[in-house]
Amino acid sequence: MNYNIDHSREKRIGFPEVVYGESKDVLTLLNIISEVVKKSKKVLITKLQPEKYIEIKKTFPLSFYDKVSGVCIVGKLKKNKKMKPEVVILSGGTSDEFVVNEVYYTLSFLGLQVHKYLDVGVAGIHRLMSKREEIKKAKVIVVCAGFEGALPTVVGGLFSQPVIGVPISVGYGVAEGGFTALNSMLSSCANGVTVTNIDNGYGAAIAAYRMLKG
Amino acid sequence: MNYNIDHSREKRIGFPEVVYGESKDVLTLLNIISEVVKKSKKVLITKLQPEKYIEIKKTFPLSFYDKVSGVCIVGKLKKNKKMKPEVVILSGGTSDEFVVNEVYYTLSFLGLQVHKYLDVGVAGIHRLMSKREEIKKAKVIVVCAGFEGALPTVVGGLFSQPVIGVPISVGYGVAEGGFTALNSMLSSCANGVTVTNIDNGYGAAIAAYRMLKG
Amino acid sequence: MNYNIDHSREKRIGFPEVVYGESKDVLTLLNIISEVVKKSKKVLITKLQPEKYIEIKKTFPLSFYDKVSGVCIVGKLKKNKKMKPEVVILSGGTSDEFVVNEVYYTLSFLGLQVHKYLDVGVAGIHRLMSKREEIKKAKVIVVCAGFEGALPTVVGGLFSQPVIGVPISVGYGVAEGGFTALNSMLSSCANGVTVTNIDNGYGAAIAAYRMLKG
Amino acid sequence: MNYNIDHSREKRIGFPEVVYGESKDVLTLLNIISEVVKKSKKVLITKLQPEKYIEIKKTFPLSFYDKVSGVCIVGKLKKNKKMKPEVVILSGGTSDEFVVNEVYYTLSFLGLQVHKYLDVGVAGIHRLMSKREEIKKAKVIVVCAGFEGALPTVVGGLFSQPVIGVPISVGYGVAEGGFTALNSMLSSCANGVTVTNIDNGYGAAIAAYRMLKG
Amino acid sequence: MNYNIDHSREKRIGFPEVVYGESKDVLTLLNIISEVVKKSKKVLITKLQPEKYIEIKKTFPLSFYDKVSGVCIVGKLKKNKKMKPEVVILSGGTSDEFVVNEVYYTLSFLGLQVHKYLDVGVAGIHRLMSKREEIKKAKVIVVCAGFEGALPTVVGGLFSQPVIGVPISVGYGVAEGGFTALNSMLSSCANGVTVTNIDNGYGAAIAAYRMLKG
Amino acid sequence: MNYNIDHSREKRIGFPEVVYGESKDVLTLLNIISEVVKKSKKVLITKLQPEKYIEIKKTFPLSFYDKVSGVCIVGKLKKNKKMKPEVVILSGGTSDEFVVNEVYYTLSFLGLQVHKYLDVGVAGIHRLMSKREEIKKAKVIVVCAGFEGALPTVVGGLFSQPVIGVPISVGYGVAEGGFTALNSMLSSCANGVTVTNIDNGYGAAIAAYRMLKG
Amino acid sequence: MNYNIDHSREKRIGFPEVVYGESKDVLTLLNIISEVVKKSKKVLITKLQPEKYIEIKKTFPLSFYDKVSGVCIVGKLKKNKKMKPEVVILSGGTSDEFVVNEVYYTLSFLGLQVHKYLDVGVAGIHRLMSKREEIKKAKVIVVCAGFEGALPTVVGGLFSQPVIGVPISVGYGVAEGGFTALNSMLSSCANGVTVTNIDNGYGAAIAAYRMLKG
Amino acid sequence: MNYNIDHSREKRIGFPEVVYGESKDVLTLLNIISEVVKKSKKVLITKLQPEKYIEIKKTFPLSFYDKVSGVCIVGKLKKNKKMKPEVVILSGGTSDEFVVNEVYYTLSFLGLQVHKYLDVGVAGIHRLMSKREEIKKAKVIVVCAGFEGALPTVVGGLFSQPVIGVPISVGYGVAEGGFTALNSMLSSCANGVTVTNIDNGYGAAIAAYRMLKG
Repeated sequence: MNYNIDHSREKRIGFPEVVYGESKDVLTLLNIISEVVKKSKKVLITKLQPEKYIEIKKTFPLSFYDKVSGVCIVGKLKKNKKMKPEVVILSGGTSDEFVVNEVYYTLSFLGLQVHKYLDVGVAGIHRLMSKREEIKKAKVIVVCAGFEGALPTVVGGLFSQPVIGVPISVGYGVAEGGFTALNSMLSSCANGVTVTNIDNGYGAAIAAYRMLKG
Repeated sequence: MNYNIDHSREKRIGFPEVVYGESKDVLTLLNIISEVVKKSKKVLITKLQPEKYIEIKKTFPLSFYDKVSGVCIVGKLKKNKKMKPEVVILSGGTSDEFVVNEVYYTLSFLGLQVHKYLDVGVAGIHRLMSKREEIKKAKVIVVCAGFEGALPTVVGGLFSQPVIGVPISVGYGVAEGGFTALNSMLSSCANGVTVTNIDNGYGAAIAAYRMLKG
Repeated sequence: MNYNIDHSREKRIGFPEVVYGESKDVLTLLNIISEVVKKSKKVLITKLQPEKYIEIKKTFPLSFYDKVSGVCIVGKLKKNKKMKPEVVILSGGTSDEFVVNEVYYTLSFLGLQVHKYLDVGVAGIHRLMSKREEIKKAKVIVVCAGFEGALPTVVGGLFSQPVIGVPISVGYGVAEGGFTALNSMLSSCANGVTVTNIDNGYGAAIAAYRMLKG
Repeated sequence: MNYNIDHSREKRIGFPEVVYGESKDVLTLLNIISEVVKKSKKVLITKLQPEKYIEIKKTFPLSFYDKVSGVCIVGKLKKNKKMKPEVVILSGGTSDEFVVNEVYYTLSFLGLQVHKYLDVGVAGIHRLMSKREEIKKAKVIVVCAGFEGALPTVVGGLFSQPVIGVPISVGYGVAEGGFTALNSMLSSCANGVTVTNIDNGYGAAIAAYRMLKG
Repeated sequence: MNYNIDHSREKRIGFPEVVYGESKDVLTLLNIISEVVKKSKKVLITKLQPEKYIEIKKTFPLSFYDKVSGVCIVGKLKKNKKMKPEVVILSGGTSDEFVVNEVYYTLSFLGLQVHKYLDVGVAGIHRLMSKREEIKKAKVIVVCAGFEGALPTVVGGLFSQPVIGVPISVGYGVAEGGFTALNSMLSSCANGVTVTNIDNGYGAAIAAYRMLKG
Repeated sequence: MNYNIDHSREKRIGFPEVVYGESKDVLTLLNIISEVVKKSKKVLITKLQPEKYIEIKKTFPLSFYDKVSGVCIVGKLKKNKKMKPEVVILSGGTSDEFVVNEVYYTLSFLGLQVHKYLDVGVAGIHRLMSKREEIKKAKVIVVCAGFEGALPTVVGGLFSQPVIGVPISVGYGVAEGGFTALNSMLSSCANGVTVTNIDNGYGAAIAAYRMLKG
Repeated sequence: MNYNIDHSREKRIGFPEVVYGESKDVLTLLNIISEVVKKSKKVLITKLQPEKYIEIKKTFPLSFYDKVSGVCIVGKLKKNKKMKPEVVILSGGTSDEFVVNEVYYTLSFLGLQVHKYLDVGVAGIHRLMSKREEIKKAKVIVVCAGFEGALPTVVGGLFSQPVIGVPISVGYGVAEGGFTALNSMLSSCANGVTVTNIDNGYGAAIAAYRMLKG
Repeated sequence: MNYNIDHSREKRIGFPEVVYGESKDVLTLLNIISEVVKKSKKVLITKLQPEKYIEIKKTFPLSFYDKVSGVCIVGKLKKNKKMKPEVVILSGGTSDEFVVNEVYYTLSFLGLQVHKYLDVGVAGIHRLMSKREEIKKAKVIVVCAGFEGALPTVVGGLFSQPVIGVPISVGYGVAEGGFTALNSMLSSCANGVTVTNIDNGYGAAIAAYRMLKG
């Protein structure tokens, strides 16, 4: 078989190769999953469509699939026993969930303890304020926000941990596509917020992982 | 003299013609001011350069000039005695002052009572929270913000009055020119915030005036 | 049930939480509507697809649905008896109707008296002129326009009330998406026009409500 | 001398080569003017800086210079005796004059009868209405407008002649550079308006000339 | 019936109201067509989908439909007997035909004599050169071009008539959407070319009509 | 004195308030510096012009100024004795130095050990390869790059630590302003690279500080 | 038959006319193919959909079709016996294959010897390094890259041959549409890299052909 | 001395390191020039300001400076005796000369025979036609064009050699900055034209060199 899998990536940069599911057909996915599982016992697939998971599950019944984000994990996800979150994920509303969950399950796959709060947008600032103590316990904060993308700025002004902003392609008119949220986060008047590409939950998770394990 | 001054504007739409000072030479300005003052007793000039004011003051000693915004008022500004502000102006930092003052002096010229708070940006949310009671007393809130422009969203979620967002051309990189602040305000997840052009303090003042007198 | 409904919003900022219908499935909508109706007797849903309304109507027969805008109101809309409009909505052509109606029904839901004139575009200026007396009676003017978005400028020069411009995503080529109408309204040479995001009829309605009740 | 002057252009496409003055030094200009004048008796130079004209006037005292637009005409401009304008130029305000005059003097140089009205912007629509009869007499209408560029749309809806829109780089924020006026004119809901590049008064004049002489 | 048809437009600006077919349903179209035909004997519908024409033909058998452009003419199109074209339409390739035909049939409807040449793009300049004599006979030249939009520049340098550039949304990558062709035509180094919105064949036809009849 | 200095920021989010020098006059700067130094012993000023430093030095002789970046530190910078760098800064060429030094001196001010390598651009990949061992020793990598901004991608593929990309406004044509470098970093095919605003060296330093101390 | 086929193109500029398959129907394609094959024995069709090839194959069984790129070759492709590649095609990942193959089969059709390496992206720089000797043997290098488009810069710094960058419309967020890759290649700090339009594999092939045969 | 000069570049990729003069001070330039000249006998400096050349000439009297492009060559430029040009440079007008000369002198420095034709723009197509025979003799064609950038398309359709388009930042309005010329060249309907960054004459020269010597 000739899938050019980078088996040495984990050794080189600390985390395994991940399979981008969206553009691959089921047969290709099954072959790649088999090959990776043989060496690594488990594998993460991102942006997998539900109809493909139905096929994959037949061959790999020991697997998990999150419909909202399209994350699929083949193999056993060992439970992390820590009570304090290493990473906390915040977002403004439920429409950000498709990215929030990509961050959540990627970090879970990498063995980190994660908490998420989906409803702490700045148009009702009291909702964020009521979670201050929980957020303070985490080591890294990932903030997902669409529309005007103001949440990372408020968070960056309240907390001392690393803050990773993830702009979400939610909104219409000038907000369509997530570019307003992206630019808003990049020009945040809160210091030291860094940003990923629009909807790049997987990238934010790897960035958090680099901070905690790097 | 043939300056085509719209003397009937006040009767038609409720506020007098204003002189845009930036691109006119001193002679033209003196002629226009004379003609308007003859009819209306006073006149507002916006974006006036300091060196031009020196000349204007010689002919019109009864005049006021704000160096930060370039607003000049020729004639007597009658003191408004009301204690409660009709309009409150909020901004994130001192670099927004050149627009804040344009709003402030235009509204003062139009006879409204105005208060301003320059240092209530969202990266230190406690500063806004400590002014809640004062802000609640106003009838209209004008919010000036550059960089990521998040302040109108937080304000719109805390108060029930009309909120007018004014994006400021303060910032660098993706924030340069004020477009990020503009788009951020337009896509605010707080409901019912309306927006003016970048740096358009004069327009925000007239909008507030329309709301209070219209 | 765990929908995090902001029941205190009406008390805090003067208008109730509204349900964005487009991205929610029928089950979720039914649950949220039930919960809100229990407390508030009625609820406004925006951007609801027709096929979802068929299902909602089965459970909530006392409801209204506007196919053009997708606005749905569950509960009884009490008739407003005033003869003079508090808000007048103007637009250039019938293709703007999907937003005009969102403004119209949101304001009706909030208990305001609204009139609308759909065919007063500036390419045939006599149509606007013939409605001058009716428009003068309103307290707030909402102007919807796509293509070159010139209508708010003409309106702002003719009337003294607050003018809220709503750019519409109608047009092709350089007008596609509504950005030309948006920029045109923001740079209007008529003073004191404020603007909402493209197609944001709901936001314009709330802005008008803030002006009248704030 | 080796200036590659296109002496046959007038024969080929109906109007003579014109000299763009802005980027050429005085010596080069004097040489080119001499060469053209030898054949054609007169020459038009556009965008000429005043300090260069002082030098040119020494050699060519029979010349005319308009400071506002930078147009210079060397040679004798024969007076056009017709009373009715062949072209009428409209603009919203005095800040458009630098382009209005470029149209005006180019057309005068080409021997056409031109009238101009500088103060007929749509924010005070009565000003345009009061000129209707004069405008109806022209064969071509050139409309210069900055900011939101709405004037050509209103004009296109009122008159049956060819309407050439010239967007002007006047304005700030979203209007800066003239792109909003350009897009507004291109997406005009009035039919059959055509448009030139931003500030291209010379191009509009040639387009009008093609229509009248072509 | 309450379709607000502008029956006086022809008298006011010289050409009748036209029906934009794309966004109207068959019933509405039939009603509008009936009403216009009653007064004017014939009517032009643009951007009409083929499946709608099938229905319209049942009621109005005396009608014509061009599948490529979607232009439909109800009523009898009287043959124009002139041999010399009043307008000539040029384009770079067959993919521009959907706009070329919109120009062609709109002008035919308005009673003008039109010729079209679809294959004279500048990448094979000899094709344009071989049509020089035919093109010289027309009074107005309409040039449609997608991709890099260079054709109007070459045409403007070869001919003395009015040249109307119509950018076409044909191309991919940086040419997608027609903006490159639009900007290319606006910044043409050939003098006096004017431009319409992308794909606006109807607008170009009306512009030509204004030139010939205005 | 009424400079609204946020003395509690260090306690709240872990690092002290910093003075942005560019837009403040010398008198204001002297007052602010005095007030901060009274409490904190030292202060960091960014983007300070050389002529202002000459004045500041007279009052605060115990100070340091870096001409390339404009960073000024008033007070004693205690030497960090660690041999291994906590942060390593990489850049493609010497033209990035004005931002590299802002990162360098901000981190030095915050007490971290920093190394910098200015000449490791990807057009000569051997230069980066020869520093692999030194880079591996750091805990965080900051990568500054203008033009096509490719360096963070190569670095992200070679090392396991957190990688912060800082786009630099160096380049011309499509690279002018740093937007190409910004977009290139955001869409990096190397996983887990996060990004700051263009030229935001101070922000990158604070982000690194949050990772190491947060 | 009246397809205006440019049979003389090969003589004039060295390569035959190619058929763009995407927008033509099967009947048109069959007619054009017949006409070209009659004169030239073989023909290249680009961007052909699979369902159209099924029909074409029935008439032209001696033909080849590549599903990934949509390239179709009718006629016999004579095998090129050279061992050393004249052109080598590099790309960052398998998602670029749809363009890589368009380059590959166009060059094969033109009789050149081509090699391709699909998996040499800069996030794992060792993959490119391991192919150095093979790449050195080619006369022209075509580099396809999406996302941040960094590969041509690294290649341009390692090799002395002509390097043609082809940006690929692969990626999401700021990378969507291929504009980031395009701008990245244009502003490459490696000297002498030239670039084609996004996804223009055919253009890159012809450019390479011009270099080798021109 | 520690200028990190890449003395091995010539061996690695076939052409020597070049000094970018614009941002370096005279002292730095003198040091770098000395060091390079010691090894290579001669050196090319690009974008050098005239006042710096005056100083450089004192130390290196055996040098050449072109004021239009800012190219400086230190050392002896050996005359190339070939009569036939290896590269021909075409441009639309004299305003492109600052880039044309950068191409010309860079290629001369690299030992190639170059011809240039500055006045062959497409608005007067006969000028290009009259040079056909000369252009046919060259091996590579570099085409510089600002405004609408149409020249490379016409050239690509007439000649079989490699065509390198260089967009020039000449023009105003939509042409300002050279982006219209860039996009026009990238979407050229002539096959196989490749493009450099705006104003990148040096890059075009190196690309031509790679083609001729690579």
